[in-house]
Amino acid sequence: MTAKQDKIWMQRALSLAEKGRGYVSPNPMVGCVIVSEEGDVIGEGYHERYGKAHAEVNAMNQVDDADNLKNATVYVTLEPCSHHGKTPPCAQMLADKPIKRVVVAMKDPSEKVNGRGLELLRNEGIDVDTGILQKEAKELNECWLHYIEFNRPFITLKIAQTADGYIAAPNGDSKWISSKESREKVHIWRSQNDAVMVGRNTALHDNPSLTVRLVEGRQPKRVVIDGPFELPRNLNLFSDQFEEKTIVITHNRKKSKDEADPMLKMLQSNYFRGEIIHVEKVNGHSRLKEGMRKLADHGITSLLVEGGQQLSSALLKRGLVDRLQLFIAPKLLGGGTKSIVNLDINRMEDIVPFRDHNWQQTGQDILLTANL
Amino acid sequence: MTAKQDKIWMQRALSLAEKGRGYVSPNPMVGCVIVSEEGDVIGEGYHERYGKAHAEVNAMNQVDDADNLKNATVYVTLEPCSHHGKTPPCAQMLADKPIKRVVVAMKDPSEKVNGRGLELLRNEGIDVDTGILQKEAKELNECWLHYIEFNRPFITLKIAQTADGYIAAPNGDSKWISSKESREKVHIWRSQNDAVMVGRNTALHDNPSLTVRLVEGRQPKRVVIDGPFELPRNLNLFSDQFEEKTIVITHNRKKSKDEADPMLKMLQSNYFRGEIIHVEKVNGHSRLKEGMRKLADHGITSLLVEGGQQLSSALLKRGLVDRLQLFIAPKLLGGGTKSIVNLDINRMEDIVPFRDHNWQQTGQDILLTANL
Repeated sequence: MTAKQDKIWMQRALSLAEKGRGYVSPNPMVGCVIVSEEGDVIGEGYHERYGKAHAEVNAMNQVDDADNLKNATVYVTLEPCSHHGKTPPCAQMLADKPIKRVVVAMKDPSEKVNGRGLELLRNEGIDVDTGILQKEAKELNECWLHYIEFNRPFITLKIAQTADGYIAAPNGDSKWISSKESREKVHIWRSQNDAVMVGRNTALHDNPSLTVRLVEGRQPKRVVIDGPFELPRNLNLFSDQFEEKTIVITHNRKKSKDEADPMLKMLQSNYFRGEIIHVEKVNGHSRLKEGMRKLADHGITSLLVEGGQQLSSALLKRGLVDRLQLFIAPKLLGGGTKSIVNLDINRMEDIVPFRDHNWQQTGQDILLTANL
Repeated sequence: MTAKQDKIWMQRALSLAEKGRGYVSPNPMVGCVIVSEEGDVIGEGYHERYGKAHAEVNAMNQVDDADNLKNATVYVTLEPCSHHGKTPPCAQMLADKPIKRVVVAMKDPSEKVNGRGLELLRNEGIDVDTGILQKEAKELNECWLHYIEFNRPFITLKIAQTADGYIAAPNGDSKWISSKESREKVHIWRSQNDAVMVGRNTALHDNPSLTVRLVEGRQPKRVVIDGPFELPRNLNLFSDQFEEKTIVITHNRKKSKDEADPMLKMLQSNYFRGEIIHVEKVNGHSRLKEGMRKLADHGITSLLVEGGQQLSSALLKRGLVDRLQLFIAPKLLGGGTKSIVNLDINRMEDIVPFRDHNWQQTGQDILLTANL
């Protein structure tokens, strides 16, 4: 195979991997293409759903004639696993086949693998090439890599504001500041993130359902920070068909214990069917960092935060935002709720610069995407 | 001439007219091209400076051989004048030549002309065609047309803010929120507007000189609203080389009278060499509408307003902004001075929609241009 052919097949494997987006967390997305000695694709597959077969297995299962595997090349977007998890180790499975070469886009940095998959293959006499479309592979699994490295979800903060920086009119209304195209984009993001989060005030005043409606896509978990655990139970987050997908982050120790108690649940007719995460209270607020870490423990690798002012500002101030998605609508309010406050920046020199940023028009609005 | 040729020559005339930008106010920009019967350009000209010759005269002066004027066509971007102003009427001057046809982009809507120039030409037996590139001609003289119609300058409000809508850090500093490319654009606008205006607080705290430095261009007049007429005289606006180009709008009747009194001036060594506009006081503030009308009386047809918060908001609230130029920098302050406040909009439905708008990247920033 030439280097150019390697890239073509790896690109195909990346496209396959992408199909698993939203369904494989907290696993990474992985795609695999098997090419015969003659240069024909004889198997393709991707990791389709958490707990189900890995990409390499799905691709191998597609191979009709085992003879074709002789001297074949396997393209896989992530280092094959070397450990027994929910499925047997893929590296060994590949090594047991008469293949000649494995091409890997990037090493798996997670503790359980971290090069051992590549080592196993090499020890079994298989040619291994790595780094083909590595940049693209890292981008594909950006959130998962972040989750592995920092033990918290990759956090995207979405804000929709007027050109003068207000997210709601003085009467509290915010429907709709941004254009339909912008709102559709948000629904796509919802379907791609493991969870969507709002603060207590937003839950109370806007009563959002945080569902995927404007586009087709899978429903993410819904996280609400409710320090005292006192939000009314008739809110959409607690009463609609996705109630079980709601996670409450609270510092109310007693309530979080009671609500999680199966015995007490049985005694209540309308007990809360979602999950509860208990965190410590600091300065009257639930500890955000602890909350994020515990979301990671719950398998949330990517989190889309949809306001409001207090939560957005608190996350930014604590360095808990990885990407800002700021929709700016061509409108002026000149009053109401400001988008971001209390960052405790006093001088221009103290502004924390974005790592990079990009402006993109969406409908009538402009979208600032900034990495922090 | 074909319609296509008409457009080509008129486009040339418009390009010539543009060269007068910044130098002809309160006159409009006008360009003129004379084309012989054979289709050769025999004369070109534009209105170069207020008080000097009109475009038609300058073009006619270029004609070497008067014989070439026989059956020639004259392209002029604005209806030739029919009245004696600083110069004799151009319509009569053209009618006296052996030309065949005059092509005019747009009628002159000002009271003194308003079709009389075209009528004069037609009565003298000259073919007159109007409306060729009319849209472009109106755009060229957008400010002047506004000034003629509404008897106040065309007001452009420029604001440079962070992505979250702050124009200064909590310590008052605003240098520099926007990128170099954005600031250069502002200097170009300064050179193109008849005057640049700031409010009292901006004059006091930023001590701007409002000069054209980052680009080549002519220095506009500088307007500062100083209700009590108490700003310190050592500010740049009152003490630099352009002091005579400074106009103070004040409601201090006594001071505006004293400062304008030639006898009192002679008695003072450091009297104010600029102009003074007196307006009434309303709710403790100088009457903005009256100030704008009086600026028009002073020959200001276009005004660039460069903040700050109080002046920007007051102009917007009173419907005195014709175009908003809002630079948004990819930075967050989360505190400081908000760009726009107190518009008294309570509900989303009460937002005044822009007539049209456009997003454009300038350096790192995005620029929202909106017509109100």
